[in-house]
Amino acid sequence: MTYCVGIMLDSGLILASDSRTHAGVDNFAKFCKMNVFERAGDRVLVLLSSGNLAGTQAVIGILRQRADAGGDVPSLWTSRSMFDTAMLISDAMRDVDNRDGAYLAEGQGFNASFILGGQIKGEPPRLFQVYAAGNFIEASPRAPFLQIGETKYGKPILDRALTPDTSLDEAAKLALLSFDATIRSNLSVGLPIDLLRYEADSFKADNLITIEEQNLYWRELRSAYGGGLAALVASLEPPPSADGVV
Amino acid sequence: MTYCVGIMLDSGLILASDSRTHAGVDNFAKFCKMNVFERAGDRVLVLLSSGNLAGTQAVIGILRQRADAGGDVPSLWTSRSMFDTAMLISDAMRDVDNRDGAYLAEGQGFNASFILGGQIKGEPPRLFQVYAAGNFIEASPRAPFLQIGETKYGKPILDRALTPDTSLDEAAKLALLSFDATIRSNLSVGLPIDLLRYEADSFKADNLITIEEQNLYWRELRSAYGGGLAALVASLEPPPSADGVV
Repeated sequence: MTYCVGIMLDSGLILASDSRTHAGVDNFAKFCKMNVFERAGDRVLVLLSSGNLAGTQAVIGILRQRADAGGDVPSLWTSRSMFDTAMLISDAMRDVDNRDGAYLAEGQGFNASFILGGQIKGEPPRLFQVYAAGNFIEASPRAPFLQIGETKYGKPILDRALTPDTSLDEAAKLALLSFDATIRSNLSVGLPIDLLRYEADSFKADNLITIEEQNLYWRELRSAYGGGLAALVASLEPPPSADGVV
Repeated sequence: MTYCVGIMLDSGLILASDSRTHAGVDNFAKFCKMNVFERAGDRVLVLLSSGNLAGTQAVIGILRQRADAGGDVPSLWTSRSMFDTAMLISDAMRDVDNRDGAYLAEGQGFNASFILGGQIKGEPPRLFQVYAAGNFIEASPRAPFLQIGETKYGKPILDRALTPDTSLDEAAKLALLSFDATIRSNLSVGLPIDLLRYEADSFKADNLITIEEQNLYWRELRSAYGGGLAALVASLEPPPSADGVV
């Protein structure tokens, strides 16, 4: 499993991914699931991946090779829009599926999915989720965040507190709290967390941090949130008793 | 789907259930999923149910008829312990499965599961979860709550804030916040919520309330929690920037 989240805000984008991969509980490891393609002043493209690691690495490998090849091949460096970029990811996924799908065990075929966030000059920042079938959806102000992997534990905090006018820093906190909720309940999601705050129209991906277990901010955030939540719940009125007025 | 939760505290038990049942999104209804068997001074047994409604009603029906029959038949009124009571539920589930299982569509066989909480004189309060196969587990101080149905959205708030020494009223609030998180994200979980606070050694199930959409307390709880959570998150430090000290 995996947990990745992308958030689309008026002020930019948040992209965050965990690092745990596993094949059974007795074989787990850390891999970075965030890939950044940046050309200052022109584009920032960020891919978060979930699913079989061989599949996601193959898709990233194809995208990277095609981008590096230059020339007339459509690629992450030449796409005219984020929509076209999502199409390139979809094409690469289908290429991997065509090559490997028949060789993979029944029911465990190619199953990668991606979040694509970023900005290409001439467009506002955009955020997409590409399903395993290669089709995709785009975030909107009514649905400002997209998740892949283990999505449920980390959803309530985002549902409650996130709106498009949330600031990048506030949304970054919410994303980390969403990861904390997920990591507490699902062993197959784990640190480190890669967290990118992308400021709209900056065309730079330089505010990227990696949070490890021993990170002091992470520990303080969890502790302050836990303590604050307990105090908040304590401050709420208890439910009326059956013999009280409801 | 369904959401039910049972919480075992030093001071007693919380038992809560939603009321939505459905067969597809175009056919949904309200049914009470909480059944209380009470004999003042001797026992309080509470069953929360999840799964196919015909199956759960059949199990409750069998248990109720056997209890009403009196005589030597082992029943909810004669069981010597909560463990024995869980066995009676298991037996009733297998009886229903034996009768109906072969007639139900492939993959949609008998699939009910239950939470059993309560107290029989001579024992402390106990809490069990009975799986669809009829086997069961018991809650303990290290795992003080049990959930059935749509369990994920409502788990983080319980994980963060609940301990065995939480009071009944505090735990009742947490249970309702757990329901709110679930109801926001899963259309197949819905109001009204039945909420029982059982005080240890009281052998009475009289503090049972039903919360409907228009319930003033429910609306104020959600509003106060939402506002408080936003203020709490705003009070937390933002993550350090990439060029700051992490």
